[in-house]
Formats: sequence, structure tokens, C-alpha cells
Amino acid sequence: MNNDLRPIIWDDDNKQLILIDQRKLPNSLEYYTCKNYHDVAFAIKNMVVRGAPAIGVSAAYGMALAELHNSSRDYIEKAYNELKNTRPTAVNLFWALDRCIEAYNNKSSIMEEAKRIHKEDIEVCKKIGQIGEKIIDDGDTILTHCNAGALATSAYGTALSVIRFAYYNNKKINVIADETRPRLQGAKLTAFELNYEGIPVKVIPDNTAGFLMKKGMVDKIVVGADRVLRDYTVFNKIGTYSLAVLAKYHNVPFYVTAPYSTFDFKNNIEDITIEERDEKEVIYIDGVRIIPEGVSAYNYAFDATPAELITGIITEKGIIHPNNR
Amino acid sequence: MNNDLRPIIWDDDNKQLILIDQRKLPNSLEYYTCKNYHDVAFAIKNMVVRGAPAIGVSAAYGMALAELHNSSRDYIEKAYNELKNTRPTAVNLFWALDRCIEAYNNKSSIMEEAKRIHKEDIEVCKKIGQIGEKIIDDGDTILTHCNAGALATSAYGTALSVIRFAYYNNKKINVIADETRPRLQGAKLTAFELNYEGIPVKVIPDNTAGFLMKKGMVDKIVVGADRVLRDYTVFNKIGTYSLAVLAKYHNVPFYVTAPYSTFDFKNNIEDITIEERDEKEVIYIDGVRIIPEGVSAYNYAFDATPAELITGIITEKGIIHPNNR
Repeated sequence: MNNDLRPIIWDDDNKQLILIDQRKLPNSLEYYTCKNYHDVAFAIKNMVVRGAPAIGVSAAYGMALAELHNSSRDYIEKAYNELKNTRPTAVNLFWALDRCIEAYNNKSSIMEEAKRIHKEDIEVCKKIGQIGEKIIDDGDTILTHCNAGALATSAYGTALSVIRFAYYNNKKINVIADETRPRLQGAKLTAFELNYEGIPVKVIPDNTAGFLMKKGMVDKIVVGADRVLRDYTVFNKIGTYSLAVLAKYHNVPFYVTAPYSTFDFKNNIEDITIEERDEKEVIYIDGVRIIPEGVSAYNYAFDATPAELITGIITEKGIIHPNNR
Repeated sequence: MNNDLRPIIWDDDNKQLILIDQRKLPNSLEYYTCKNYHDVAFAIKNMVVRGAPAIGVSAAYGMALAELHNSSRDYIEKAYNELKNTRPTAVNLFWALDRCIEAYNNKSSIMEEAKRIHKEDIEVCKKIGQIGEKIIDDGDTILTHCNAGALATSAYGTALSVIRFAYYNNKKINVIADETRPRLQGAKLTAFELNYEGIPVKVIPDNTAGFLMKKGMVDKIVVGADRVLRDYTVFNKIGTYSLAVLAKYHNVPFYVTAPYSTFDFKNNIEDITIEERDEKEVIYIDGVRIIPEGVSAYNYAFDATPAELITGIITEKGIIHPNNR
């Protein structure tokens, strides 16, 4: 087991948070050091670190860094607000920040809480893999979207934890990674981390998935989640919804992986903001302009997939089947 | 009417074929000159010129250039074979080459035949636009995929001819262009030519179309075709099939535009080769590697959409409704 890809490292000696700079992958493996909560907020907003669970863990360390520097309520609340306003859709951010505030209110250490969130995330991802790998058959080709991998969490990943544990259990599997425009997390991150562990992976343009399903080349689809509502609506990377419709049409099982930290039992679909990011992410690829001057682009970062399109939601406590309730 | 985008120019004075070099758009408008049939074969294979009708017209001029240089049967057949082996999926290539050979066999001029094919293509595209624009309502937002525009034909386009004539008839319309990975013809060509004429266009990543349909932001979909079979199976740019499934699911009318030169009444679906192009087209974007070393990619250039997903096929002779036969 070669599982040393850890995107979030707490450096206790130097009291700093070290993140893999995911903007630089796959061409170079560089680290980004956060010395205070502003650095963490920058890292989340600019996607140095991304993926719902990894955002949650990083935000918690951001709060811990704030506490180290100034534990007054004023300062802690400023940190909370700055971190909260980095990204709107993934719920783990708010969940982690709320746990830190609660610890603070109870006069316990935010640092200890952040370390607990970090450790729990590793355990939860491992559990998701161990439980979820049962849905994978020997010989399966599994399609995944975006990066719900070790790089999106503290270790193992969520969707990729399922794939990892199937592989660890000696199932012969192949993975197809949607490249996932505009930021290409599938091409850049999923392909990188699976290849790093020797798990066979091929990349496709996002528009090719339906054709491969039609050809019978996809046995299962497994994706991550940024937020799961009470009615099992799943918010995840843009393109997930299209994949789910195509899966339904072709009778391909469609699984979502989601730790309970991703569940939002309070809000309804109309309460959730789907982040629209800067159109430059679509217009430029690695600095090269692909759209003519004067033309603009839509850049929705997420979409919502209703429960009726989902075969199962794999959590650390078991698999929820939203349509056999 | 500002319709002077002509991707194919026959320069009769210098006996050469001048093509807009579509590999350079939208950042620069450059021309590529073909002095012999090898140049034309290179231009088709490497997508200097692309789009089923434009490939057909260019191939015909390739044959005409061969005839100018050496009108022996041997030489003409060599030209025919080299041009035939450039790209396998679009049928117009073979249709145009066969017309040229027939002219040669009948002892008439290939050059005259090429000019006739060129002129007919302009008329046919205009007709498709005039007939097809009736399906567009004032206020519609129309989604299109790849580039079935003036740049894919001799003038006007097929799908974009429908959009152009709706616009010429003062219908207020908006266009959404799928960027169309891997070669980004939607982002680079469709956005360029619509913007050039002042028709409002926005670009989206291919994976965003389903979400926009769900939000009710797409009124109609109009695409081109590389080959239409007797049973109305439509071969077109990869991603067309996924769009058609999504359109069906969301009750969005899905139209294909196809001149009769694109119809193939002889072959069945299993006879058609879906071109797999070099994986480098997916792995690199404008020279930048987006997929890690050691990981490969699928690069299917086309897919097949069955008749049951198609609302109408707009031809120069009228609209075929494949499901109301």
C-alpha cells in the first residue's frame, strides 16, 4: 500500500499548515505554507486546496492558527468570517468552522479540535473505502468525475477510497477519469494520484462519457459530494448531474460517496448557492486564451443531482439507497 | 448582413486553394495555401480545414489540382486514394471524391465539378438556414455543439445557418456554444464566427449543458452532422450523443442540420468507423500538458445518435421528423 499522498500536513514544530499546492499538479509537486488564517483563506479561495473534506480540515487549522496568534473573541470571529466567505457550496467548510467555534465557546482548544477533525477525516475516508469497495466487482471499469481523492481529503479520498480499497483487495479494475473542465481536476489530480499508486487510469474529455456508456465500457460511476441534503439531493462538481442522467439512461449504477460531514440536514435546495467562479477559468487554460476576445463564458462550479438518479450514497456508516426507502 | 467569412477560396489566377487555417483561430486569422493535392490531404488530415461540407469541397479542389498537374488515370487515382484516407467518418469527403471521379470517367472537367460542388454547398447551406430558421422562436436560447458554421462549410454553415437566418429575420436570440473538447471548435470557431457577425454567444464547458437544461436556460439544440444513415442515425462530433440524451430527458427539442451530401443510404451503423485521433489532442491543450506523464487518454472524435433522440433533421429540401414516420 503506497498511500503517502497527504495534501494537508500540520507542522507542529513550526506551527504552520503545509498544503500540496494543487494548482501546480501534475507537472510539479510543490507545497504551500500557511502561517496565519489569511493564508488559509487564500488557499481555499484560490484552490491551492480543494475538495469538500480537505477544505473543512484546512479551515479548522486556519481557526487554530488564529487562536495561536490571538485568542480574543473578536479575532476568532474575524477569522471565522474570513474563512467562511471563501467558498459557498461545500458544506464541510461551515461544519468544520462551527465545530471550532463550539470548541472555543466551551473553552477547549481549537487546535485540539482541528487535529481531531483531521484525524477523523482520515478514519472516515478509510471507512468509506472499506464499505464502498463491496460494490466494485472484479474486472469493473469505474468512471469518476473531478477529484474525490486523497488530494480532496486528508488521505484515501472518498470516491477514490472506494477505488483504492477495491484495488488493495486485489480486484482487477480500470478507472476512467473525466478530465473535468474547466479546472481539469480529473486530468490533473485524479489521473496523478491513481497513476502514483499504480491503479490503471485513462482520461476522457467530459463529453465522451455518454458514448462510452452506450458502448458498454462503463460498469459503475462513483463520484464525491460537496453537500448532501435531507432529501438526498447531491451538490457536486459541475457535470455530475449530466453524468447521473446519462447513467440512468444507460442503466449504469451511479454511486455518490459522502462522509456525514458533507450532509446538510437544515437547508433546502433553494437555500444553496451554486458558486459561479470567474469566467477566466473557462476562457484561459494554463494561461492560453481559448475563447475569442469579446466573448464571455458561464462558469458554474457545481450542480445538483436529485435522489432519483442515485443508486447509493456511500458513507462511513453504510450505504444509503435513496430510492428504496 | 455581414457574411464574408469564407473558409475556402479557389484562386483561379494562381491555380491554388486558399483555406482559412482553422488551427490558428481565434487568436489569428491566417491562410493556408494548397498548391497540389498533397497539400489538400495534409490540410484535411490535420484539420486546417474541418467540418463535413468543407472537407468535401476542399477534397474536390484537391482532385482538380491533381487534374491540372497530370490528368492520367494513374495520377488521378493516386490523388483519390490519398485524399480518401485522410479522415474516415464524415461522408461528404467520399461523396465529393466520387463526384470528381465520375466527372473524370465521363471525360468532363474535374475543375468544373469542384466549382459546382463549391457553389452548390453555398446554396444548400443558405437553404438549410432559410428552412431551419422557422423552428426558432423570438427570444430563444439555442445551444450548439462543435462548429457547424460558415467555417465548416463554404458559407453560412448548417446549424449556424439556421441561427444566422433567425438573426437576419430579426429574431432576438442567444446562443450557447459548448466549448467542445478536445479541439475546442465551439470555443475557438463557433464563438469566433458568431461574435464576428454580432450574434450574442456565450461559451460553456461541455459538462455544463445538462445543468443549464435543468435550469430551463436552453430552448432548442441545433447541431451539425458528419454522416446520416438511412435509419437516421446521426454521426457527429463527440458529445452530440450525450447532448441528445440530455435533451430527451429535459424535453428540449433536438435538431440536426444536414445537407443531402451528408446522407449515406448504403451503409449500416456497424460499417462506419468512428475515428480515434491521437491522444495528444486530449493530453495537450495548445502545447501545455494537462495529464500526467504515463497516463493516456481516449480520443474518439465522433459518436452516433439514434433517430429516437432526434426531433428533426433540417435539410435543404425540408425538415425530416424521424419519429413521425
